Amino acid sequence: MKAAKVRLFVDHPLGEGQSVSLSRDQAHYLFGVMRQMPGDVVSLFNGEAGEWRAEVVSAGRKNGELICRSQSAAQINPPDLWLLFAPIKKARTDFIVEKAAEMGAARILPIQSDFTNSERIRQDRLQAHAVEAAEQCGGTFVPPVEELQKLEAVLSHWPEERQLMFCDESLAGDQTRLPEIDGPWAILIGPEGGFSEAERKRLGEMGNAHSISLGPRILRADTAAVAALALWQAQLGDW
Amino acid sequence: MKAAKVRLFVDHPLGEGQSVSLSRDQAHYLFGVMRQMPGDVVSLFNGEAGEWRAEVVSAGRKNGELICRSQSAAQINPPDLWLLFAPIKKARTDFIVEKAAEMGAARILPIQSDFTNSERIRQDRLQAHAVEAAEQCGGTFVPPVEELQKLEAVLSHWPEERQLMFCDESLAGDQTRLPEIDGPWAILIGPEGGFSEAERKRLGEMGNAHSISLGPRILRADTAAVAALALWQAQLGDW
Repeated sequence: MKAAKVRLFVDHPLGEGQSVSLSRDQAHYLFGVMRQMPGDVVSLFNGEAGEWRAEVVSAGRKNGELICRSQSAAQINPPDLWLLFAPIKKARTDFIVEKAAEMGAARILPIQSDFTNSERIRQDRLQAHAVEAAEQCGGTFVPPVEELQKLEAVLSHWPEERQLMFCDESLAGDQTRLPEIDGPWAILIGPEGGFSEAERKRLGEMGNAHSISLGPRILRADTAAVAALALWQAQLGDW
Repeated sequence: MKAAKVRLFVDHPLGEGQSVSLSRDQAHYLFGVMRQMPGDVVSLFNGEAGEWRAEVVSAGRKNGELICRSQSAAQINPPDLWLLFAPIKKARTDFIVEKAAEMGAARILPIQSDFTNSERIRQDRLQAHAVEAAEQCGGTFVPPVEELQKLEAVLSHWPEERQLMFCDESLAGDQTRLPEIDGPWAILIGPEGGFSEAERKRLGEMGNAHSISLGPRILRADTAAVAALALWQAQLGDW
């Protein structure tokens, strides 16, 4: 069988012999843009069933069908790590979502904090970025991107067993090592203006919140997100 | 004295009472774009002398003068860490340079490896990105960006005392901790196609090269650069 040149996320069951119908957009991308033809092989994944080699059996302008032939990679789920971040400028918000998907975050939560400028996000567009990152980087999991929520609302329902690593250069704490606590975690990246006094107090009172230093230079929020994910993955995650 | 609203890198000596003449571009930026006027205060740094509060004493369309009043931050130099990377697509190469400056790399070396697509870079443009990153992020140091060199040429003159951390997912090694060796280091990020067999052999034969894992997911080169810098800084650097 030919080698697959395209990786595609599909919201569809996958398994041996499974037929997969394409949406209009997918058909346009696969046949119009990527010039795939009947007989060509495409890598499919749905976020749950690993990666499958699927053969194009029909290719139209508005639709198409593939048949799954064999599994080419097992499903790999990331550790139970959430990323909470305050949306910033559009390109950098897109970037944070892309990097979170690459770095193995399991769930992405845009949050509105006291000093967040952005009052809305395009959840569908951010989710599409997470899908594209997984397609590009060989991942079999796509982290869900939630709608924007207020930080206070998220913290007031915070699960007791989930540890929270937060990075705020104006807070005390020169620790770069996390406490060795297994189980679910989350990373909170503040907005460019940092956290408000009320938010600092709130975080300081949470028994399961841990302040971590990202060094003496001020990092942009997108840089801080990747750096924090790297520290967590290397120490407590699946690296 | 007023608070400074602008941070500007100048290639000029700085010190108490020092007069600083602006270039045409700087005058345009400071007075035309940022609307600064005589009496306003600007933060200046030159990469060597910390940060200075400087007062605008004359503002023209093509030139201008400032006088340094007081030092507002001490010089902070990063650890002796080089970042070697194979240039990729333009926006992502810009991004790597920006992030390296934020994360505290002391020197940035674009390298051409066997599988590097890019055969040239715009060194001046990349250097400008490093300057802008330092301006934005409150840094007082600007890492020099070198011209593109062949990886083989760099490795053949490699200083014996400088350790090299390299990240290549196809190489053996599931270490996320670096050996605790003090002194100068460098990080090498390969191109998207990874390293060639010859390059792998070359690196494997170097006694001071250390392979580090960045996890089970394939990372884009720009993500890998930030993640590797974070691991190094947290373990051996100034975080």
